Amino acid sequence: MTPYETIKAKRDGRQLDPEDIRRFLEGYTTGTVSDYQMAAMCMAVFFRGLDPRELGAWTRAMLESGEVLELSDTPGIKVDKHSTGGVGDKVSLALAPLAAACGVPVPMISGRGLGHTGGTLDKLESIPGFKVDLPISEYRRLVREVGACLIGQTATLAPADKKLYALRDVTATVDCLPLIASSIMSKKLAEGIDALVLDVKVGSGAFMKELDDARALARTMIGIGAEMGRKVVALITDMDQPLGRAVGNALEVEEAVAMLRGGGPPDFAEVTLALTAEMLVLGGRAPDPAQARQRLAEAIRDGSAFRKLQEIIRHQGGDPLAVEDFSRLPRSRASLAVPARSSGFVSAIDCEAIGLAAVALGAGRLRTGSTIDPAVGFTLERKLGDAVGVGETLVTIRYNDDRGLDDTLRRVQSAYTISPAAPARRPLVVERIE
Amino acid sequence: MTPYETIKAKRDGRQLDPEDIRRFLEGYTTGTVSDYQMAAMCMAVFFRGLDPRELGAWTRAMLESGEVLELSDTPGIKVDKHSTGGVGDKVSLALAPLAAACGVPVPMISGRGLGHTGGTLDKLESIPGFKVDLPISEYRRLVREVGACLIGQTATLAPADKKLYALRDVTATVDCLPLIASSIMSKKLAEGIDALVLDVKVGSGAFMKELDDARALARTMIGIGAEMGRKVVALITDMDQPLGRAVGNALEVEEAVAMLRGGGPPDFAEVTLALTAEMLVLGGRAPDPAQARQRLAEAIRDGSAFRKLQEIIRHQGGDPLAVEDFSRLPRSRASLAVPARSSGFVSAIDCEAIGLAAVALGAGRLRTGSTIDPAVGFTLERKLGDAVGVGETLVTIRYNDDRGLDDTLRRVQSAYTISPAAPARRPLVVERIE
Repeated sequence: MTPYETIKAKRDGRQLDPEDIRRFLEGYTTGTVSDYQMAAMCMAVFFRGLDPRELGAWTRAMLESGEVLELSDTPGIKVDKHSTGGVGDKVSLALAPLAAACGVPVPMISGRGLGHTGGTLDKLESIPGFKVDLPISEYRRLVREVGACLIGQTATLAPADKKLYALRDVTATVDCLPLIASSIMSKKLAEGIDALVLDVKVGSGAFMKELDDARALARTMIGIGAEMGRKVVALITDMDQPLGRAVGNALEVEEAVAMLRGGGPPDFAEVTLALTAEMLVLGGRAPDPAQARQRLAEAIRDGSAFRKLQEIIRHQGGDPLAVEDFSRLPRSRASLAVPARSSGFVSAIDCEAIGLAAVALGAGRLRTGSTIDPAVGFTLERKLGDAVGVGETLVTIRYNDDRGLDDTLRRVQSAYTISPAAPARRPLVVERIE
Repeated sequence: MTPYETIKAKRDGRQLDPEDIRRFLEGYTTGTVSDYQMAAMCMAVFFRGLDPRELGAWTRAMLESGEVLELSDTPGIKVDKHSTGGVGDKVSLALAPLAAACGVPVPMISGRGLGHTGGTLDKLESIPGFKVDLPISEYRRLVREVGACLIGQTATLAPADKKLYALRDVTATVDCLPLIASSIMSKKLAEGIDALVLDVKVGSGAFMKELDDARALARTMIGIGAEMGRKVVALITDMDQPLGRAVGNALEVEEAVAMLRGGGPPDFAEVTLALTAEMLVLGGRAPDPAQARQRLAEAIRDGSAFRKLQEIIRHQGGDPLAVEDFSRLPRSRASLAVPARSSGFVSAIDCEAIGLAAVALGAGRLRTGSTIDPAVGFTLERKLGDAVGVGETLVTIRYNDDRGLDDTLRRVQSAYTISPAAPARRPLVVERIE
């Protein structure tokens, strides 16, 4: 079929042949299919969807538009985790060394902060010297020798996705489930993984605000995995408030380290352990999640998970002492307490508003390419269900620049709802889908 | 709204504000809205449609993207006719002089052959010397002084439509009712007309194969007319076989002349008179179609319609004697009879196949810019319901070049279905909608 016929067939609700999809996306990558034809196709996909077979072909074509990393020199089942993004989500920082310490190789290609959410690369770079732009040969070596490597997206992986994402961004076809799912999966599969654990966030701080949407995304990605011969397990986890207490790059590194040493906020620890346990099962290092949890507890207790983090840091050019002595991490000059204006229980936290306030403070980027301040951010002194008296601290703002500080304080204050009664407790892991 | 927001609103089924539509189309004309954004928009319109108010705004924006001809120096109600296109459709050649002879000014901007259908401009140019690319000032003068002028589309009229049509053509958004209707109406209203008669063809040789689709197009265009303050009347007419007996440019001129002199095939005469009668009523020259038919019969009988045709030809640079002495028209060197392979009644003619065979013979263009042979074409010796014996002639092929002639003969033969019983007679004017 010609590009025209392929668009028309999708428009008319006919099932596309995998070969036609491959040719269309290949044409888009090489330029024989134009941006306007792809824009029409994406809009047709928005209305008609892609069935599992089509979605498999679409994802494979995006994957094959670039380099697919070959990690066969690393023995074992390589497993990565992908999160749909949240606020205070430092899971990867603890999960990668934990899984690696338990023998699961973790090839992890992460992103930067996007919108109101943070990004793993930005957090890692708050560790002095840490490099996320290693050459592919080095990435391959570290996965093999260290058991984990955390780098950024390269231009050679799934270039069709990069081109397509920029187009979708200006043609109102971003929020289209099959296109979201194939975008994520093509990038993840290009890493050379054998299996994937998916953390689909749901709630006020997530891209998916509704459980049904989160479920649909999880199922779609699991379906793509099945089409491509990769096992995908998804946990739907709560993002109705920031995860843990720290929001901000170096602050989150500290919290991840605390967790690896057996401490840290219980919600963050629980989500991290639940996701990492799935990786151990997928990676063949534990027969079920319960036994995986025991292995993980042991890796924390015996210090091997923490040492693995230091090993990763050392091999990626960072200062491994920075996670023993936090004074070697960037720290803000000053702090300010955000007081509660009434007393009661924290009954809601507008998580997206907290994320946006952190971005405005300098913890994230208002536009691509702007610099961030790794030291700044928030410590949440009160979380959902906590009691608070008038004037008591809700959040401590860590800042370097007091311009806009009043605004930040007001934003944070407004993001909290305080009520006479405590809210019902929400489960952290809402659902498991495989 | 930004272009992005406008696309998204349409995608999500929200009603667009006329001002947002105007800004989006103006942006497209000037280049601030990109081709890929318009492609996404057209696909969203394919799925969501445009309501009458949106359609009015869309058409007005296309109209206002260029020059709108001002014919106020011509007294009277200016009326044009538009046909959705067919095979052997030479109606305009007779209708324009007929209406003008009865006092209705006809500003007519026509097109060339498209796909399997013929075009009025190609037919007119088979008259030696006839010019269809007159300057606008001359067009305006001829409408005023002669009462009719037939020219081609200019670059200054509805340029947004031209740009948009080229885009729709490669993004599978051509067959989208509101976009078809607004495209036609924007071009027609740019002519400076006050009212329009619409000939919506239905059948095997028409773009609309089904009556319901033809009705929907008619109603949509009438709705746009209402939004723009222009009266539109539509006749749905039969195109299940070529109209009349002649298919091919000069051959069709001969047939149109025969009709203006009181002869010609009855189906062609009937459709022409029905459409022209509507023009007379819209133009205020007759109180109803029945009295309009009497006026038209008189204009044929007294020779004024034929003389008006000669006057038009003379003013547009053509040889007026060519319609008195057909030897002055291009004529083919040779002819070949297509014999029936069985005897019985002609029960079906694949009208699109006849049109495509005529194009292949040289009467139309296989691609934009190729030259046509004005002399070649077909004379249909048998039409639907006619009896035929084995070996008797179905069609006479008029040709100059015998390459591919066997193929043409086979195509024409295959387009005819001969059955033991005569088919039910179909009405020529299927429906009238206003």
